Amino acid sequence: MQFLSDNAAAVHPQVWQALRRADAADTPYDTDALSRRLDEAFSELFGREVAALWAATGTAANCLALATMVPPHGAVLCHREAHIETDECGAPGFYLHGAKLVLAEGEGAKLAPEVIRAALAAIRDDVHQAQVHALSLTQATEYGRCYRPHELSAIDAAVAGRGLRLHMDGARFANAVAFLNVPAAEAAGPVDALSFGCVKNGGMGAEAIVFFDPELADVARWRRKRAGHLQSKGRFLAAQVLAMLEGDLWLHNAAAANAAAAEIGAAAGERLLHPVEANELFLRCTAEERAALRAQGFGFYDWGPDAARFVAAWDTREEHARALARAIAGL
Amino acid sequence: MQFLSDNAAAVHPQVWQALRRADAADTPYDTDALSRRLDEAFSELFGREVAALWAATGTAANCLALATMVPPHGAVLCHREAHIETDECGAPGFYLHGAKLVLAEGEGAKLAPEVIRAALAAIRDDVHQAQVHALSLTQATEYGRCYRPHELSAIDAAVAGRGLRLHMDGARFANAVAFLNVPAAEAAGPVDALSFGCVKNGGMGAEAIVFFDPELADVARWRRKRAGHLQSKGRFLAAQVLAMLEGDLWLHNAAAANAAAAEIGAAAGERLLHPVEANELFLRCTAEERAALRAQGFGFYDWGPDAARFVAAWDTREEHARALARAIAGL
Amino acid sequence: MQFLSDNAAAVHPQVWQALRRADAADTPYDTDALSRRLDEAFSELFGREVAALWAATGTAANCLALATMVPPHGAVLCHREAHIETDECGAPGFYLHGAKLVLAEGEGAKLAPEVIRAALAAIRDDVHQAQVHALSLTQATEYGRCYRPHELSAIDAAVAGRGLRLHMDGARFANAVAFLNVPAAEAAGPVDALSFGCVKNGGMGAEAIVFFDPELADVARWRRKRAGHLQSKGRFLAAQVLAMLEGDLWLHNAAAANAAAAEIGAAAGERLLHPVEANELFLRCTAEERAALRAQGFGFYDWGPDAARFVAAWDTREEHARALARAIAGL
Amino acid sequence: MQFLSDNAAAVHPQVWQALRRADAADTPYDTDALSRRLDEAFSELFGREVAALWAATGTAANCLALATMVPPHGAVLCHREAHIETDECGAPGFYLHGAKLVLAEGEGAKLAPEVIRAALAAIRDDVHQAQVHALSLTQATEYGRCYRPHELSAIDAAVAGRGLRLHMDGARFANAVAFLNVPAAEAAGPVDALSFGCVKNGGMGAEAIVFFDPELADVARWRRKRAGHLQSKGRFLAAQVLAMLEGDLWLHNAAAANAAAAEIGAAAGERLLHPVEANELFLRCTAEERAALRAQGFGFYDWGPDAARFVAAWDTREEHARALARAIAGL
Repeated sequence: MQFLSDNAAAVHPQVWQALRRADAADTPYDTDALSRRLDEAFSELFGREVAALWAATGTAANCLALATMVPPHGAVLCHREAHIETDECGAPGFYLHGAKLVLAEGEGAKLAPEVIRAALAAIRDDVHQAQVHALSLTQATEYGRCYRPHELSAIDAAVAGRGLRLHMDGARFANAVAFLNVPAAEAAGPVDALSFGCVKNGGMGAEAIVFFDPELADVARWRRKRAGHLQSKGRFLAAQVLAMLEGDLWLHNAAAANAAAAEIGAAAGERLLHPVEANELFLRCTAEERAALRAQGFGFYDWGPDAARFVAAWDTREEHARALARAIAGL
Repeated sequence: MQFLSDNAAAVHPQVWQALRRADAADTPYDTDALSRRLDEAFSELFGREVAALWAATGTAANCLALATMVPPHGAVLCHREAHIETDECGAPGFYLHGAKLVLAEGEGAKLAPEVIRAALAAIRDDVHQAQVHALSLTQATEYGRCYRPHELSAIDAAVAGRGLRLHMDGARFANAVAFLNVPAAEAAGPVDALSFGCVKNGGMGAEAIVFFDPELADVARWRRKRAGHLQSKGRFLAAQVLAMLEGDLWLHNAAAANAAAAEIGAAAGERLLHPVEANELFLRCTAEERAALRAQGFGFYDWGPDAARFVAAWDTREEHARALARAIAGL
Repeated sequence: MQFLSDNAAAVHPQVWQALRRADAADTPYDTDALSRRLDEAFSELFGREVAALWAATGTAANCLALATMVPPHGAVLCHREAHIETDECGAPGFYLHGAKLVLAEGEGAKLAPEVIRAALAAIRDDVHQAQVHALSLTQATEYGRCYRPHELSAIDAAVAGRGLRLHMDGARFANAVAFLNVPAAEAAGPVDALSFGCVKNGGMGAEAIVFFDPELADVARWRRKRAGHLQSKGRFLAAQVLAMLEGDLWLHNAAAANAAAAEIGAAAGERLLHPVEANELFLRCTAEERAALRAQGFGFYDWGPDAARFVAAWDTREEHARALARAIAGL
Repeated sequence: MQFLSDNAAAVHPQVWQALRRADAADTPYDTDALSRRLDEAFSELFGREVAALWAATGTAANCLALATMVPPHGAVLCHREAHIETDECGAPGFYLHGAKLVLAEGEGAKLAPEVIRAALAAIRDDVHQAQVHALSLTQATEYGRCYRPHELSAIDAAVAGRGLRLHMDGARFANAVAFLNVPAAEAAGPVDALSFGCVKNGGMGAEAIVFFDPELADVARWRRKRAGHLQSKGRFLAAQVLAMLEGDLWLHNAAAANAAAAEIGAAAGERLLHPVEANELFLRCTAEERAALRAQGFGFYDWGPDAARFVAAWDTREEHARALARAIAGL
């Protein structure tokens, strides 16, 4: 019973079907009919004209997006526990040619407006310090927390007039939207580019980068090729992304994962280090307790010496979630 | 009847089967059972201990390989028409952090030992000129030409004692091996790293980078992650690559493509700009003749004002090849 | 009697005086009174509002200028023998983060409008090929040749409407202006940024980068700091540059060097590989002849097996130039 | 009465003399007699074979040194207030091609062995996190604190067996050695490369990078050229550095600056935020008190809302130091 990560879950049957359909010959790279449909599909989803590109991984999506916003001599402001800082092996440094990540703190890996303001104020406006050109938020965060629309508006107001771009790492954007129960556009807020995750949510190897400023997409196309991310059979990536949007599969899958997490969270009670909003759980848990859970067949990651992380996925079986809930309650 | 490029061909049924089998849950990134089998599979193929990584594209494979060999202040020697120079939008500049490509000439996009020697001799050994740290050959070349084993040995001898690394862009390595009819190791010659192509040969989105010096692979692993190319469901890439090796599917597919090209080539006669060795054909062809072929339903690229390029793929249907042969003969 | 290079000549007495005067304490970096005077001094010289920064070397000046014009996924078009291609150890690749240099041919290291047009036309407008964002010309060229104002206008017309930026490597701009005998602005033509050389012309370690589009200068300031080129005692660099402009010292020095070269050139007659326009001479010369000249005490570089390069400097003594002229005539 | 920074102080008369002597013609770049003397001069100073290069600035020296030690996918461990992190506009990101700076805390900008161990332990040994390849210490630190030889040994022991390189930012190394009153080699400890500062200590525009592993110097030479830091009249940089070493001018100058700081520090008493060891003072100081000092003619930087920084230089006049001491005592 695997709760290690949603990033190794199975591929959803509808995605498989879309992949098979995409096998029919078409033109290479992103000139095929499916790839050319992405802009429209996401424009419909967000209710405004956007441009969308596929990319194989969240790291690539994040970095390609940021590379359109931040010059090499600039900086990105993000949370100290943002994925781009902690888990991408310096990919932003690679893609942004050495631009800095400026780190700020916040509960649940969320950034608050006053923290953002303070971080920006701490940077002298002279050539000796890299200036912040973009802000990167994660929705849902690395601790499964979600920014409410009014929080996004407050952040937008806090940086108004500074010319900052806003990037959103949405590796689990679907889980956030499913939790917030608002239109996608409200969960994205005032972003310029969104990494729209599919891989953790039933995809095989495709995310979308959604540019709310289509001019940025023009730059991203060159950068994607140059990074070796313009796959020649790009139709298979487009197919995955479109399948996720079709009939709101992305939301159904996310809702399923969230529900499983909620069930486990309800059983975890006081053990919870963070409220369960999306599909991740962080639990206080001794080494002995972890051993006990593992002995019962549950797979998960240690989270430091006294905690554990469990992630539910779109394909987490109800009986597994229930079993884990029982096991935790019984510790 | 599509002869535009093998890079948009269909995915081979055995690859599809392997993909479906890989759907079973496993651990993420390259820790799954399939990814861990790559080293062994390629060691067996090449008859010596090698380390192999998957990557989504040939551009990524080439650049990740070269990045392990060439420091940012160095250079790569390659043909003026090498794919890394002409068709990767400066990806080597990105991955190698500004290292130079030093260009040399040669018929059929092949580099001869004396050309290599002359190119190296033209670089002053002082800090004002970037020094060549690696040589990159394409097998089969961008014009479908193949290096014979003795040619590779001669190149090796020509650069002996200079400490150069040797990279081989093998986007169509299978076609070369099928044509040369020698063991894979002989077609690779004395290379340090080989980009082993699968996408053009029946794969969906996976190539292999084979490191004959396993220490280079250790560096490549970091670089791959940092480039956003470490896919979380890496098992699907490994599955494709393993399926290609299984039962020599890679050779069968390449042989089919080569045979189709050969049939067309036989009909092209004097029109051929290059002998047909692999699966590409370059034909003298006026604009009118090209229009006539297109009117008969054939898809292909113009190759400058007076020529056309046709590429056969693993799934080129015999009747299509025959039809094209007839149409060319009838021009 | 040294004719190796003007880049090792002595520092002019007026530059020494300016350096000594600059020793008086002032604020650091480029906030001192001298550095703040550069914009005005160059605006006066060029008869329009420009922004000017100092930098220690021509390589830094060239690359900082180009880095403001060309994104990492772009390219610079320049002559195959441009200094940025042949003698900067890949510095443009470093500063431009892997952007490509696209090379073109031309007599005397000059680029002609039709060559530029052809080079641009050879690049497909798709993401597989890096697009040219800037053109770099050298005035005077690496062979001491000068672009006439009408030639610069013709180049400007040739690239009109393409959105290209124009950079001029003016390591020997003074020699060009002295030869052309036109206002500086006409010798610069329609450039966006000019590397204005001082070191070869009586300076110690300071060049100027003149931005005809002052917005580019704002970017260059960050890049200069980030490259470790913002010297804390920047007043000493500003002092050198201002001393060169004061009373047209730069032109007097260049005229002296040009005159020495002209005298030698007159004696060289048929041996000249290039007309002598600035302060460099390239002469057909056998190995024996070179040995003979060296035996008479002349220092110079071989230029391939059958030629030699002689460079006159601002401080080349008349009797040395005359002696060399005699020696060459007597070969 | 200027206490803003030692980085804008005058050039020492002996340095001026050396500069004038260097005006005599010699060969360009670093092939001149003075540049070639650096290795020997520093080998003598440190009592072992080292290789030394000049560079115009501390930022360049630090980054060129680090670039020889850390691959683009690696990281440098340094203090959160290290100059390379806070005041070089991301230059390490540029020179190291996006490698990360991993930050740690410590009183007085010093890193303690246990802090270093903890910082290293916090990095997972997998490809998702950039691994630390080098440690960078500042001697004296950004708060004027000095590492004792036994502290350096303890740090060395703490990282033993990890294959880490050690870099020392010695912009004020002279002040540290003067304070510690130990041989230079003991103040450098087990470093692989030292940025040996001259500019703040009576130089004009030259620092030295001392490589205790001469193989690193070979890489640095290429990187220096490529960064536009190989000045053609390099003899003027070598002259400055050699003049500083001649007759221990570097130590005399540093001792003078330290003495001035000590005198002021003695008067500052309880106001001191850090013990005065080198030539910098950080004082608790209200806005009114700062205004009062400025009204008396003292120049200095605010250090946040409640403090001020004063820096003494080699040329700080005794009466100025005494006057400042009195003024502070009288606040």
